[in-house]
Amino acid sequence: MHVTPDHPRYVSLSLRERLIQAHERGIVSIAGLIAHGRGEAFDYLLGEYTHGFAIDAIEAMAANIVLARHPVFVVNGNVAGLVAEDVVALSRDAPLHLEVNLFTPSAGRTRTIVELIEGLGGVAHTPEEDTATLPGVSSSRSSISVFGLGSADFVVAPLQDGDMVHALKKAGMKTATIDLNPLSRSAHDADITVVDNITRAVPLIRDAVRFLKKRSRKELEVISRFDKEGALHEAHRSMTERYR
Amino acid sequence: MHVTPDHPRYVSLSLRERLIQAHERGIVSIAGLIAHGRGEAFDYLLGEYTHGFAIDAIEAMAANIVLARHPVFVVNGNVAGLVAEDVVALSRDAPLHLEVNLFTPSAGRTRTIVELIEGLGGVAHTPEEDTATLPGVSSSRSSISVFGLGSADFVVAPLQDGDMVHALKKAGMKTATIDLNPLSRSAHDADITVVDNITRAVPLIRDAVRFLKKRSRKELEVISRFDKEGALHEAHRSMTERYR
Repeated sequence: MHVTPDHPRYVSLSLRERLIQAHERGIVSIAGLIAHGRGEAFDYLLGEYTHGFAIDAIEAMAANIVLARHPVFVVNGNVAGLVAEDVVALSRDAPLHLEVNLFTPSAGRTRTIVELIEGLGGVAHTPEEDTATLPGVSSSRSSISVFGLGSADFVVAPLQDGDMVHALKKAGMKTATIDLNPLSRSAHDADITVVDNITRAVPLIRDAVRFLKKRSRKELEVISRFDKEGALHEAHRSMTERYR
Repeated sequence: MHVTPDHPRYVSLSLRERLIQAHERGIVSIAGLIAHGRGEAFDYLLGEYTHGFAIDAIEAMAANIVLARHPVFVVNGNVAGLVAEDVVALSRDAPLHLEVNLFTPSAGRTRTIVELIEGLGGVAHTPEEDTATLPGVSSSRSSISVFGLGSADFVVAPLQDGDMVHALKKAGMKTATIDLNPLSRSAHDADITVVDNITRAVPLIRDAVRFLKKRSRKELEVISRFDKEGALHEAHRSMTERYR
């Protein structure tokens, strides 16, 4: 597909092209392609920009990352295919741990994603190094790294299904997600939900983390609080209004 | 994925599985997988059932099929992957012509889809038999069959992009579409728009055609009229309300 930057759908079409290329490189699964389409529809309803309710969530997420003892960012195929560079940069700035965990099990795909992250100068945990168990998710996903998710007190788990976020919460970890569907189980189960396109959100999370690192622990504790129900309500309303 | 019929997402997950299998058989393109995800999101907003505005559109479409001199139903990868059996049955009941036309050009995929249709007892036109040109779409799609779209006075072009519907209209053909996004260009450019999941709509189109064939030409002409703007407005409203 050849679209020029003045095309009204340029950003969306470029992201779709990036995801298709990542699929061809063995990073993104077929289920991930369909999930991306669902996200496209919700982002279209959002107007494809970062709203105030997302900025608030990003700020709270960033404060929690800075405050956490062992923050972990979960990387799946779509996260790697869309924002690997930004996620690696965030992991170095924060710093935070990256862990690869795939919905559709594949040792080959895990390896490809780890190599992508390492090629960008990052480090990724996988269950292979030393395995712990996360109860409540399908067997292929329940293997986690002792040094990654197994030690986490705050987890950012974007573009995940409801089971994963629910399991992380049940295991006692404070959990944030990035999800374009404000009605999803993940959006409701997470402590902090950023309703935004992950490609717009992650660079902003990085900016917020760099900025908030200068703040005192006391200030961070105030900023880390988040009115999730209010934000989800705002996200609904904004999609509904745009749609009218 | 193993889901049982009592799972709340059973129908949606089964369709997704059917589409993935059709992709693996070379029927559905990668772009088609992403497009299916977008449709899933809009169908979710619709409540995943056939609304009154879709029934009205289906009835008008069926009347136009019965009235037309040379009705043609355009089959692309997702149409073939999702509803090949029902489309072939409709083509025999009406009768109407089927023509394979793909957004992403591929002689191999065209052949696979033609064989699928023939295996189900249908006949499919392709540009290869005798080529006419449809101006206004990309070169790969502008080749049409003289005996199919090249002779059509009424075209059903479901799950299509805006360019295709626009080009069919400009070529003087009355055009209907099936599209889950009531804001899409296709939905607005077509004369008749069925805002519904194609897997629910096509069996109903078949029922309506069989029923309406018993009606007089004069009655059919009344039924064939359709308030498209009203129906699209209703579709918006229903998605918005459900979403609140």
